[in-house]
Amino acid sequence: MANSKKFAVVLSGCGVLDGSEIHEAVMTLYAITLSGSSYEIFAPDVNQHHVVNHLNGSEVDQTRNVLVESARIARGKIKPLGDFSSDVFDAIIFPGGFGVAKNLSSWAFDGAGCSVNADVANAVRSMHRLHKPIGALCIAPVVIARILGGVTVTIGKDAATVKEIETLGARHQMALQTQVVVDEKNMIFSTPCYMLDATIVDIAEGAKAIVSEMLKWI
Amino acid sequence: MANSKKFAVVLSGCGVLDGSEIHEAVMTLYAITLSGSSYEIFAPDVNQHHVVNHLNGSEVDQTRNVLVESARIARGKIKPLGDFSSDVFDAIIFPGGFGVAKNLSSWAFDGAGCSVNADVANAVRSMHRLHKPIGALCIAPVVIARILGGVTVTIGKDAATVKEIETLGARHQMALQTQVVVDEKNMIFSTPCYMLDATIVDIAEGAKAIVSEMLKWI
Repeated sequence: MANSKKFAVVLSGCGVLDGSEIHEAVMTLYAITLSGSSYEIFAPDVNQHHVVNHLNGSEVDQTRNVLVESARIARGKIKPLGDFSSDVFDAIIFPGGFGVAKNLSSWAFDGAGCSVNADVANAVRSMHRLHKPIGALCIAPVVIARILGGVTVTIGKDAATVKEIETLGARHQMALQTQVVVDEKNMIFSTPCYMLDATIVDIAEGAKAIVSEMLKWI
Repeated sequence: MANSKKFAVVLSGCGVLDGSEIHEAVMTLYAITLSGSSYEIFAPDVNQHHVVNHLNGSEVDQTRNVLVESARIARGKIKPLGDFSSDVFDAIIFPGGFGVAKNLSSWAFDGAGCSVNADVANAVRSMHRLHKPIGALCIAPVVIARILGGVTVTIGKDAATVKEIETLGARHQMALQTQVVVDEKNMIFSTPCYMLDATIVDIAEGAKAIVSEMLKWI
């Protein structure tokens, strides 16, 4: 389509406990395609912080790579995040999952004082400089707040996380399952997804809502 | 809901090349929930045939378990397929992916002469005996044909696979991306999904169509 917009989708592995939350990732791809837009998928080419057995929650003695595992969701069509160029894309979006807080950043261990993967920080900063929309689902908004500071985001309502976000100079706005919080000044879009008790239909609706809201501003 | 129907969803790992096709699996859960029905997720508690790097297609020297990896898609809410009871469910459905042909059966290596995981064969046979709907996406219909013999299914149009299916005494019916082939006599429902060139929206529409068709017969 002549007016088709191009999204970059950034994954952080494959599985809610050590990577991307799979439903959120898939529904983000679905929502983008449904809107008539297109996407390319990226992930940092680094090892996962760890590997978690999703049946019982225990740590597994294995090494897995974030790019390689994210390729499962991407069906092989994925690039290293280091290859991302903000000139090529109209928007960037981050599905959630613990991978955001363990692989894209160290938020899960260090909270507001966390480090952020350099490719992630570069991608977010370069899109922000160009005033292009940045979307973040579930826990992903914390990393945007860590990188950019004084933005407005939602992670739903978790009090401890809200407090951490505020120490970064960012503002938190409560939101329900499929609501999108829009920071017009900074072009930051966020929605809670599985940070709240949600069904897979809520995730699809949340993904559709955030993509739709982002498209209004491109 | 009083009239809510209960589906069993059977996964075969997490990733198209060595497990469940993730988009098909997620869209199956989505379609079931969207219909007002509920689901429980199952997978056999066996090791994967192998592990494939989804970035480059090479085999990885690792052992992964089908139930444990499927738990990534299920967000931990999954049971061993050995615990499945046909009395409890109104329908059973199998998303696709090479895991069906490598972990649930040996179809990828042995074609029509393949062996089938005993829990999979038991689940399909017990539902068939009760005349309850059995759904199969993508490549999954070949395993149903292998277990039950003279059924009618679709895997899209791949000539080599069609030929193998026919050696089992089954009939193949060509179908497009989101079409559902219904074998009323045997209560077998199938749709091609990624066996054809398809978008993620096609997968969602295919999943909605097969779930909707199955619900008509419960």
